[in-house]
Amino acid sequence: MADRRSFWAWCLESEEPTDEDRAALAAKLSKRYGVEVTAEPVPSLGDAELRAPRIGVPDSVAGWCSTTTYDRARYAYGAHFTERVRAFNLDFPNPPDAVAHPRDDTEVEATLDWCDANGYVTVPYGGGSSVVWGVTPHDDLGPTVVISLDRLDRVLEIDDVSRAARIQAGVFGPCLEDQLRPSGHTLRHFPQSFRFSTLGGWIATRSGGHYATNHTHIDDFVESVRMITPAGWFQSRRLPGSGAGPSPDRMVVGSEGIYGIITEAWMRIQRRPVFRATAGVTFGSWQEGCEAVRHLVQAKLWPANLRILDPAEARRAAGLDGEQALVIVSFESAELTQRHNIAQAVEIARDSGGTVDDDDIRVDDGTGAPTGRGGAVGAWRNAFIGVGNGVETSLGLVDDTFETAITWDRWPEFDAEIRSRVGAALDDTFGPHHSLSCRFTHVYTDGPAPYYTWSGMGAQGSEIAQWQAVKDEANRAVVDAGGTVTHHHAVGRMHRPHGYDRQRPELFAESVRAVKKRLDPNGILNPGVLIDP
Amino acid sequence: MADRRSFWAWCLESEEPTDEDRAALAAKLSKRYGVEVTAEPVPSLGDAELRAPRIGVPDSVAGWCSTTTYDRARYAYGAHFTERVRAFNLDFPNPPDAVAHPRDDTEVEATLDWCDANGYVTVPYGGGSSVVWGVTPHDDLGPTVVISLDRLDRVLEIDDVSRAARIQAGVFGPCLEDQLRPSGHTLRHFPQSFRFSTLGGWIATRSGGHYATNHTHIDDFVESVRMITPAGWFQSRRLPGSGAGPSPDRMVVGSEGIYGIITEAWMRIQRRPVFRATAGVTFGSWQEGCEAVRHLVQAKLWPANLRILDPAEARRAAGLDGEQALVIVSFESAELTQRHNIAQAVEIARDSGGTVDDDDIRVDDGTGAPTGRGGAVGAWRNAFIGVGNGVETSLGLVDDTFETAITWDRWPEFDAEIRSRVGAALDDTFGPHHSLSCRFTHVYTDGPAPYYTWSGMGAQGSEIAQWQAVKDEANRAVVDAGGTVTHHHAVGRMHRPHGYDRQRPELFAESVRAVKKRLDPNGILNPGVLIDP
Repeated sequence: MADRRSFWAWCLESEEPTDEDRAALAAKLSKRYGVEVTAEPVPSLGDAELRAPRIGVPDSVAGWCSTTTYDRARYAYGAHFTERVRAFNLDFPNPPDAVAHPRDDTEVEATLDWCDANGYVTVPYGGGSSVVWGVTPHDDLGPTVVISLDRLDRVLEIDDVSRAARIQAGVFGPCLEDQLRPSGHTLRHFPQSFRFSTLGGWIATRSGGHYATNHTHIDDFVESVRMITPAGWFQSRRLPGSGAGPSPDRMVVGSEGIYGIITEAWMRIQRRPVFRATAGVTFGSWQEGCEAVRHLVQAKLWPANLRILDPAEARRAAGLDGEQALVIVSFESAELTQRHNIAQAVEIARDSGGTVDDDDIRVDDGTGAPTGRGGAVGAWRNAFIGVGNGVETSLGLVDDTFETAITWDRWPEFDAEIRSRVGAALDDTFGPHHSLSCRFTHVYTDGPAPYYTWSGMGAQGSEIAQWQAVKDEANRAVVDAGGTVTHHHAVGRMHRPHGYDRQRPELFAESVRAVKKRLDPNGILNPGVLIDP
Repeated sequence: MADRRSFWAWCLESEEPTDEDRAALAAKLSKRYGVEVTAEPVPSLGDAELRAPRIGVPDSVAGWCSTTTYDRARYAYGAHFTERVRAFNLDFPNPPDAVAHPRDDTEVEATLDWCDANGYVTVPYGGGSSVVWGVTPHDDLGPTVVISLDRLDRVLEIDDVSRAARIQAGVFGPCLEDQLRPSGHTLRHFPQSFRFSTLGGWIATRSGGHYATNHTHIDDFVESVRMITPAGWFQSRRLPGSGAGPSPDRMVVGSEGIYGIITEAWMRIQRRPVFRATAGVTFGSWQEGCEAVRHLVQAKLWPANLRILDPAEARRAAGLDGEQALVIVSFESAELTQRHNIAQAVEIARDSGGTVDDDDIRVDDGTGAPTGRGGAVGAWRNAFIGVGNGVETSLGLVDDTFETAITWDRWPEFDAEIRSRVGAALDDTFGPHHSLSCRFTHVYTDGPAPYYTWSGMGAQGSEIAQWQAVKDEANRAVVDAGGTVTHHHAVGRMHRPHGYDRQRPELFAESVRAVKKRLDPNGILNPGVLIDP
């Protein structure tokens, strides 16, 4: 049997942690926090008791529909902490009744027709990397079919002249890049979920990618989309730009599966970069570093990377002293030296109080060698790339991230308010054993996209409730202080209470409802995401 | 009395052409084309016979509503050639019954309430620069009220830290820049209509601006919008970026007044540029020049200006030999020298076969002196800036432009097909006396936005019918060949037949209808624009 995705951990089955790994971590946590932490054994699917499927699969779709326990457990959840805990605990109150793996547009359409005719809850499913409860609903809303796009994984056409490609929506990040690489191309969209997320998921959720400035979201790389809805196909025209009415693509981008299922898209691609330049600049304080980032982005040099780690993150990830902030600025190009850009960026950073040795400004003029893998920048990069394989699940540790965006004029007060309110919630929930830190993942001329990471040592068995207490306050605080409840993680079901439902214009919600009613009159698609009907 | 806009010509009343100007031009045309051209005298508003207003203005809105002949004639049309001819001929079959000039949001809302309660056709009106029949309908659809935003003309707040400003929608281009200039800011949005168009109009129509690459449309500069609809206020949150559902702003941008009336917006502004660099590069052929533009834009240097004139335009506007194409590339910045960028751009242009003397590469490192006002570039600039004041109206000359966007892979065939089909329509309509030429106004990594200009010497009195014959074929040809029916002139009523109605996904039209039904249940706003109800 091929190496499958773990049904509970964010990895392949072959990469799951062992009971020994977990026992060792439990012992370490027990010692560090003075509490008794017990490592339950890693779960076995054979022990899972799933409700029997409540629907029969007719011959018309049987060729690509599955009702195996593996599929029903595997597709019961997305990737969020709370969902990983539930899967670990074999807690599957609402598994899908069937999982479809259609192999082409015709099979997607047939599956959707079957679901619509019967009023089944229908969930488009890409890589399952949602961290916002954006896929299978946890509550029972009736018979449920997951439509996985995993077999729609091909790059269908590459247009080297226009630098664009027609790509099926179900392709995972690495497989997509493998297909673009032989002709020298790349999409260069690398969300943290890259390994286990898909093009269609990126488009449906307005994924944030590799570029920290200018074209940050997948939105800007979409040339046209193809989507099947219960009302029929929605296919936009390939256009480099247009002013003909509101953009049809922008209606689909961010629709999170409530209007239809994206099956393919024409995407703007590019030549693989070979010219690079990078510098890591230290600042005496978080505030000073943030001001430097503002000056850098407002100079419109459009660096590929422009990030800042607060002193806590800079210490943890890059070994700095806990007072200093670290700014990373990088440029890349397939065709042109980036030495002038990095020189101008460094000048701005130094004028803003930053420190960087000339030796730490790395320029590569076409060898293609990485420039960002040494020193503080490299240390940070390695810390970022690593994503846990579930070893800590259900050991009482609670952690999460939340991200937002805010205009510069409000930034320092916003940051203070978030740290104060979420810090208080962490205090209340975890006592002394918690952390809260921040970096910018993306930056705009009019404001940053701050990304907060928090963790706390909680009580085994209470992780989900403890997480919820902190999350509620984070949603409230972000929206109260003027930010967006999500910059690139999407809304799903998680970000609605205290958050999205207060943030978006009420008449926009009405408009989304009106569109959904027209495209999905029976309301089968991803109910509860973004809106109530 | 203050100098008012001409009710028929694209200028102020004081700038209208005289009968002598027109007689001289008529004589010139008679001689050139061997036909008798007679210059009718410039029209006088006193000779206009307008249908009496069919509605009374109640006290609740009387303070800002007008029923004068001047207002009703002035707001009866937009700026299109066909509308200027009609106004010149005092042909006003469907003047608005009243014109409102509300002074604040409350008065806008009261006016809209009045219209909605009575089912009056309601037209939001900015500068009236629409060239797509996007404002007052020509056909009688019932009592009609124009809501002019001309008194909402203030910059309300400037946020220098975030580089953003809160601006009322009715401000005209020059007045907007006048209010931003004292603090060193600019919006730098300079459509050809700049003098007589407004911020709200730019947003409602997805106006194309100063920047030829990267952020070409007004869309990218909108931070948030405020719009009154019959269903209430639609106010989005100020955010530098977001991934929370489909963008509310992108639903409003391009909605062409069918959902509501934009009253203000937070816009991304910038420091005024003082560093500049420009080069004009000649190419032996149109095709060679277009390939160079493709290489230039795909290098992602993001020049502020990157345009190409075909040999006909390069001869007419810049004095070249009729074989050569002219590429203009310019960079600008408020903070950084642009000498490296222009050097890299020139290298690409030369590698692509272009010719430019080193002396013709102009760099200004901070004096703020213009760099693009000498030589071929300057000649072209002066030709572009001049817009006719109506001297040629109703003398038999017919002229217009149309603009589109198309991916690079289709470009040469697209251009050939457009020239062939529109050329044939010009032949059929005008015989030998016509011209057709092209430039790029905006350029994307995946394709250009070509802008075609045509003219023909037609028959006095038949100008509108002759124009229509060519326009129908242009709409058809552009959409048949894969382009968009408009890149930045908007859809209005003109671009629907043969064009927009075939181009947009049918389910998108259904979605727009559904949203309109929710926001404007009585269908009073700008009926016939974008969709039929």
